[in-house]
Amino acid sequence: MDISREVLGIKGKLIQRRRDFHMYPESGWVEYRTAAIVAEELSKWGYTVYVREEACKSASRMGVPHPEVLRYHENRAIHEGADPIWVEQMKDGHTAVVGVIRTGKPGPVIALRFDIDSNDLTECASDDHRPVREGFASRHPEMMHACGHDGHAAIGLGVAELLAKRKDRLVGEIRLLFQPAEEGSRGAKAMVDAGWLDGVDYFFGGHIAFKSKTLGEVVATVGGFLATTKINVVYTGKAAHAGAAPEEGRNALLAAASAALHLNGISRHGGGATRINVGTLKAGSGRNVVADKAVMELETRGETTELNGYMKSEAIRIIEHVAQLHDVSCQWEVVGEAPGAESSSGLVPIVRQEAEKMSHVKAVIPRMDLGGSEDVVYMMNRVQEQGGQATYLLFGSPLKDGHHQVRFDFDEEVLLIGTELLVRLTLVCLGAGGMGRKRDID
Amino acid sequence: MDISREVLGIKGKLIQRRRDFHMYPESGWVEYRTAAIVAEELSKWGYTVYVREEACKSASRMGVPHPEVLRYHENRAIHEGADPIWVEQMKDGHTAVVGVIRTGKPGPVIALRFDIDSNDLTECASDDHRPVREGFASRHPEMMHACGHDGHAAIGLGVAELLAKRKDRLVGEIRLLFQPAEEGSRGAKAMVDAGWLDGVDYFFGGHIAFKSKTLGEVVATVGGFLATTKINVVYTGKAAHAGAAPEEGRNALLAAASAALHLNGISRHGGGATRINVGTLKAGSGRNVVADKAVMELETRGETTELNGYMKSEAIRIIEHVAQLHDVSCQWEVVGEAPGAESSSGLVPIVRQEAEKMSHVKAVIPRMDLGGSEDVVYMMNRVQEQGGQATYLLFGSPLKDGHHQVRFDFDEEVLLIGTELLVRLTLVCLGAGGMGRKRDID
Amino acid sequence: MDISREVLGIKGKLIQRRRDFHMYPESGWVEYRTAAIVAEELSKWGYTVYVREEACKSASRMGVPHPEVLRYHENRAIHEGADPIWVEQMKDGHTAVVGVIRTGKPGPVIALRFDIDSNDLTECASDDHRPVREGFASRHPEMMHACGHDGHAAIGLGVAELLAKRKDRLVGEIRLLFQPAEEGSRGAKAMVDAGWLDGVDYFFGGHIAFKSKTLGEVVATVGGFLATTKINVVYTGKAAHAGAAPEEGRNALLAAASAALHLNGISRHGGGATRINVGTLKAGSGRNVVADKAVMELETRGETTELNGYMKSEAIRIIEHVAQLHDVSCQWEVVGEAPGAESSSGLVPIVRQEAEKMSHVKAVIPRMDLGGSEDVVYMMNRVQEQGGQATYLLFGSPLKDGHHQVRFDFDEEVLLIGTELLVRLTLVCLGAGGMGRKRDID
Amino acid sequence: MDISREVLGIKGKLIQRRRDFHMYPESGWVEYRTAAIVAEELSKWGYTVYVREEACKSASRMGVPHPEVLRYHENRAIHEGADPIWVEQMKDGHTAVVGVIRTGKPGPVIALRFDIDSNDLTECASDDHRPVREGFASRHPEMMHACGHDGHAAIGLGVAELLAKRKDRLVGEIRLLFQPAEEGSRGAKAMVDAGWLDGVDYFFGGHIAFKSKTLGEVVATVGGFLATTKINVVYTGKAAHAGAAPEEGRNALLAAASAALHLNGISRHGGGATRINVGTLKAGSGRNVVADKAVMELETRGETTELNGYMKSEAIRIIEHVAQLHDVSCQWEVVGEAPGAESSSGLVPIVRQEAEKMSHVKAVIPRMDLGGSEDVVYMMNRVQEQGGQATYLLFGSPLKDGHHQVRFDFDEEVLLIGTELLVRLTLVCLGAGGMGRKRDID
Repeated sequence: MDISREVLGIKGKLIQRRRDFHMYPESGWVEYRTAAIVAEELSKWGYTVYVREEACKSASRMGVPHPEVLRYHENRAIHEGADPIWVEQMKDGHTAVVGVIRTGKPGPVIALRFDIDSNDLTECASDDHRPVREGFASRHPEMMHACGHDGHAAIGLGVAELLAKRKDRLVGEIRLLFQPAEEGSRGAKAMVDAGWLDGVDYFFGGHIAFKSKTLGEVVATVGGFLATTKINVVYTGKAAHAGAAPEEGRNALLAAASAALHLNGISRHGGGATRINVGTLKAGSGRNVVADKAVMELETRGETTELNGYMKSEAIRIIEHVAQLHDVSCQWEVVGEAPGAESSSGLVPIVRQEAEKMSHVKAVIPRMDLGGSEDVVYMMNRVQEQGGQATYLLFGSPLKDGHHQVRFDFDEEVLLIGTELLVRLTLVCLGAGGMGRKRDID
Repeated sequence: MDISREVLGIKGKLIQRRRDFHMYPESGWVEYRTAAIVAEELSKWGYTVYVREEACKSASRMGVPHPEVLRYHENRAIHEGADPIWVEQMKDGHTAVVGVIRTGKPGPVIALRFDIDSNDLTECASDDHRPVREGFASRHPEMMHACGHDGHAAIGLGVAELLAKRKDRLVGEIRLLFQPAEEGSRGAKAMVDAGWLDGVDYFFGGHIAFKSKTLGEVVATVGGFLATTKINVVYTGKAAHAGAAPEEGRNALLAAASAALHLNGISRHGGGATRINVGTLKAGSGRNVVADKAVMELETRGETTELNGYMKSEAIRIIEHVAQLHDVSCQWEVVGEAPGAESSSGLVPIVRQEAEKMSHVKAVIPRMDLGGSEDVVYMMNRVQEQGGQATYLLFGSPLKDGHHQVRFDFDEEVLLIGTELLVRLTLVCLGAGGMGRKRDID
Repeated sequence: MDISREVLGIKGKLIQRRRDFHMYPESGWVEYRTAAIVAEELSKWGYTVYVREEACKSASRMGVPHPEVLRYHENRAIHEGADPIWVEQMKDGHTAVVGVIRTGKPGPVIALRFDIDSNDLTECASDDHRPVREGFASRHPEMMHACGHDGHAAIGLGVAELLAKRKDRLVGEIRLLFQPAEEGSRGAKAMVDAGWLDGVDYFFGGHIAFKSKTLGEVVATVGGFLATTKINVVYTGKAAHAGAAPEEGRNALLAAASAALHLNGISRHGGGATRINVGTLKAGSGRNVVADKAVMELETRGETTELNGYMKSEAIRIIEHVAQLHDVSCQWEVVGEAPGAESSSGLVPIVRQEAEKMSHVKAVIPRMDLGGSEDVVYMMNRVQEQGGQATYLLFGSPLKDGHHQVRFDFDEEVLLIGTELLVRLTLVCLGAGGMGRKRDID
Repeated sequence: MDISREVLGIKGKLIQRRRDFHMYPESGWVEYRTAAIVAEELSKWGYTVYVREEACKSASRMGVPHPEVLRYHENRAIHEGADPIWVEQMKDGHTAVVGVIRTGKPGPVIALRFDIDSNDLTECASDDHRPVREGFASRHPEMMHACGHDGHAAIGLGVAELLAKRKDRLVGEIRLLFQPAEEGSRGAKAMVDAGWLDGVDYFFGGHIAFKSKTLGEVVATVGGFLATTKINVVYTGKAAHAGAAPEEGRNALLAAASAALHLNGISRHGGGATRINVGTLKAGSGRNVVADKAVMELETRGETTELNGYMKSEAIRIIEHVAQLHDVSCQWEVVGEAPGAESSSGLVPIVRQEAEKMSHVKAVIPRMDLGGSEDVVYMMNRVQEQGGQATYLLFGSPLKDGHHQVRFDFDEEVLLIGTELLVRLTLVCLGAGGMGRKRDID
């Protein structure tokens, strides 16, 4: 088959791009180099490219780093080869890129989403880690693609290239959404608020090797996205000499310790699954000083948006009242948030139909529960609210180590599967014998 | 009077030395530059100088930094002007210096102790902070003389210089002990174990502006040293995805939080004052990961060695069993320790007699309670056990901010008072009409 | 219709029996009066009656009260009219009663289960509480039928009476199981271990007004039984004068407090719903004494037996290690336990068919989740393991207040519905045109 | 010597009275039987007796039991032999008794204080406990003289009898204060507020076997009384089914557990000794119900009134904010309170002089620290504020078990020592060759 062969034809390029992104990982809102490459490529293939506030609404971004951090990474990106003109346009953490093909022919709108940010980890430096052995390990300390978004970005460019070649044979409109800051659920909402999901008939997102650990397995729809809220907390107390006058202190370390234990003790909910995790806690300046500062990063989750709402409001009550309990002051901030979601079951048949045409695909699983959070749900919810259909695909791959682990590594063959399936799905939706505007027919 | 004038004559040098040390603060066991300058000066004035294991017993040092940290600071010290020959001799954290004058005439042995290490703080950079305004603020991030040890080292060199000039008129033996790593109670024991306190008849240590905040006030003896133990703890658990499988985690952050609260809850003791402080806690790698590691720095104190022993054993029980409670593993280490102590009241009269000869001294207070810990107690206890007399003096000074605060700054006039009093006390003890060998007469 | 009329004919008796049981509530393993009445009635109607160890295996009973408590209630039951001969046979907490009709004709075995114990509550004494107003409120302080088991016992006797009249027209075997100590999940296992569920083809249990709050509503099958474990804990420390020598104490109150907080913080499980509740905590003897004793009653639950197993093992680890943390000793005991279960969906059609014949029944709901625990699951699991079918029915009724509340009161019309439906189901299973032996045909 | 012989002459009576009080212990504000006996005896010997509000100011009493409890004990006292006329006068918890001799001759005023209440303990019933073996163990469940106040009351009556015989030879005024409700620091203030300490020149209180465990040892003055505050707390939450809807609960048990841990963690104070004890905690109604109620009894102490003030305000902050942390409501009440105090050292010489006249006395210790709390301090402070002298004596005795333990038992020989010393001290103060009015001469 034609498409399969074309995908095979760009295999080298897919892998090379993935490895390039892997070497230069960039975490949320500082994906300047990555985004500049994406924007450059999309332009080259004839996409209308949107960046800045057109791609993501500035005020809707969550958890944007300090301006100095942004500045540092803008410079690093340029130093590492990013086109300064693109970086200039993206500055201050506007690293979303949208590539659009408007065929001019009436037809449905399809949106494909690829997340591009890395994790805050220092990659394993051991020789038995393939990226080290084959020379594409991360060159950035404390940043690493340990969730496969390097692969997602590579697939996105592969899809972009193949669709661009076929654009004359298509109807409707293609929107390729390259999203920053998925980690921490910080970026999707800003692209939704910029309007890119409005009027979308078909939406496809996806993930490499999540839940599915077998190469050739494709999951058609994912549900059970946990709604989530990410919160940062700072407790400020008063330092004192721990030997001479401990009573003069206001102990922020104990406040944070107490908060962690009480947050962890939020009652389970009879209505469904909930989660709480205080992931980091840093407090105090010295052994013999009553700690005057403590910072915590935490998250709540719920099987539904309501259940997460319960966890969030309990958490905030605890965070605030623990401060009073320890006579310290408290600032907290929501730095990320995502609702729950469910894929459109109506898309199972086409995914199955297209996947089964691919020789690499061994099994198509109609639906799986995610049991995690992904801010793609903002996009899916918006599409579904307006009558469109949305799904989140999983592309199976074996892993060397779990997601968010320093030895994470997937089988690069999955890049071909992801690319081919998304191209095929787009062609089905927008092809001559396509499926029509979703909102008109369903 | 002769001595007062001599001290006044070196006032500029005292201040210049103090400011030089202030600009290049070095924390415990990395005082390479400071110690090299001390060793160089002592040599110049004719002292027999001991460094390496002769000055401090290697195995008795507590809380020595990682070899790479030591190496880094060795290089930095050389880069900042330390004589490489001295640094080479002091390498691997052997930064104690002992300067000895043996008069060859029978007589008592006197030991004077000066601590030379800095704190782990980044000095205030504001213009209203005098060291900034006058250009001698710390050039080392995260290191600052915020406890006056820069002044102690300067006084020590001043005393060394003035005594050297008079050595022909003295009997017995002078030992000047420049001690590293007082902060954290890590250094004194190693000098004691190297034998420098054996056979000492008279011992004087002292501190600038502790408890006493009035220039011209001298405290003759200090008691109520709190015995103390410094402990580091590492909890190691197991990371897990906080959304998908929290039950697979072993939460080291919660273990540390629980430990902090329970340590803080160790019962008061009917036998006297006790203290506990978990001063720092750092845990977790990311918000959505169950934290697999937590580290804590803590200390216990007690009005007596026995009371601190109670606190220490309770603390260790809690540290260990909290690990089991949270199903994590635990390593703990004692990184500093000091017993309780009491100055010899028999020294009050001579301190009073000499201090009252000094025009700068306005008041002599016979005794004060420290209410804190100081590892000088190892030295004092050893001297007293062998029949000698030992005291810890306080030299009053107003402060801009408390000890261990980033705006700490004292009145440099106190350097003259400290220098003159210690010279006078030495002359009384070792002078022609001196007091004789303590152990023989008392 | 014949059966409906017969049930109507005993309406007065159903209500009178229920109110009699309500006036003399007896909690788990002390249902001497209740069981004696049941045994007496069953005998009268020709059932072969089994009590003692034949009805429940002595060693399999959980949470049996202290012998003195048993003795007290044996005497009270006799004093309140129970036949001393039955009480004598039931002594030492053997209050299960089994009534059997063996028709002598080949056919299936049916078992019906009725729980008979009360709660540990003092009934509301207010005039606006119907049992008070109408004179049948509990005469036993701290015991009250607040879960409708008085109604279950009354239904059981109604069913017994009506089936006895028809026994000549039936085939197979009827086993009526009157179970003690359902509260706390303590009694069912002992009846299972006595063999009464072996060889059962059809099993029916049920509950009044649980989840279903509308008169006339019948739920055909219930699933989502939470597996559960009930644990009692005693911490024993050492008393001490809290002013003079607090350090000599070993504080059992703090141990229990710490246990409660840490138990409550057991991590949620990605595999499904779990629960933990420390329901009671009693500690200490006086304000100025370090508490030397603390007792807690707690329970764990899980959506499956495995999930409850996770909770149980975490709980036990915490219970034990908190003891060490506080240097107290600890005894814990499992006083109740029940696995998870699911009703046999194959019974939905006959329940629906029979219920729809009843004019009082307005709605038949095929299945509901319980979201609670019931030790009937031991019986259901045994029946299903051996190839039989088992279900747990819900008989809707409005309530004045929730289960286990002191103002609990249901609509007595539900007694007719429960009685009639169970008679009908028995006739269908064992009637001439019956359904045959389940294990033979399915 | 005359007095010694007289005391020896009433030895049998002293022991008999002590054992009678021991058999019928009565806790704070319900000492009806004890007080009625005291009042009756004082009357008989010619004292003017004051009870009701004249003896203790009603509104100043702290921690008075519920009226029904008072009523119950009034009846019990009468049933156990108390004169109904006295009980009637003492009703509603007015169990203080003051016996006064006004000699009519000018001279100083002396006040002697005897506390008469028992503890809330059930006495050990074992045969190896002497009160059991010799038949005078407590007949009241949950009440026991485990602090020696039975002995204090017996000594008070012995002193009253011997002084009454000598009244013609005395000058000035004697006030014998029999105080209820010492346990919990609830009674002394009400007697002070009734004016009985106004104008007192000499005040003596005392305790059997506290700190001093050797028969024949007398402590002349006691200092280091810990100031204390007694607080009761009730948390009210909301019950919920722990399986079906735990999130609907507001968990008062966890609030109390959290409060206990945080109260226990109030920071030590550099200014001196402090104490905190949550002595009792009772929470929850059933294992499977989220606990909606919890009650705690706690106390704070401090080496000074100010240090206790620090503890009290920290405690109240914690009590209140823990409520908000757990979303429950909270009531707290101060049910007892006492300041710090110090005996008048000026009384050491007369105590020594008189004690040394007694053959039973082996040693007189000038001063001891109490390290506990005693509400006698209200009386001592009032006397000293007005220029009088006050001391608290300790009468040494070996003990079978510590104070407030169920096996507490002292050596009854101490009754003779206490009686004789107080008689002698009174004679010295008010005798013909007496010491004059304290306030005039000092």
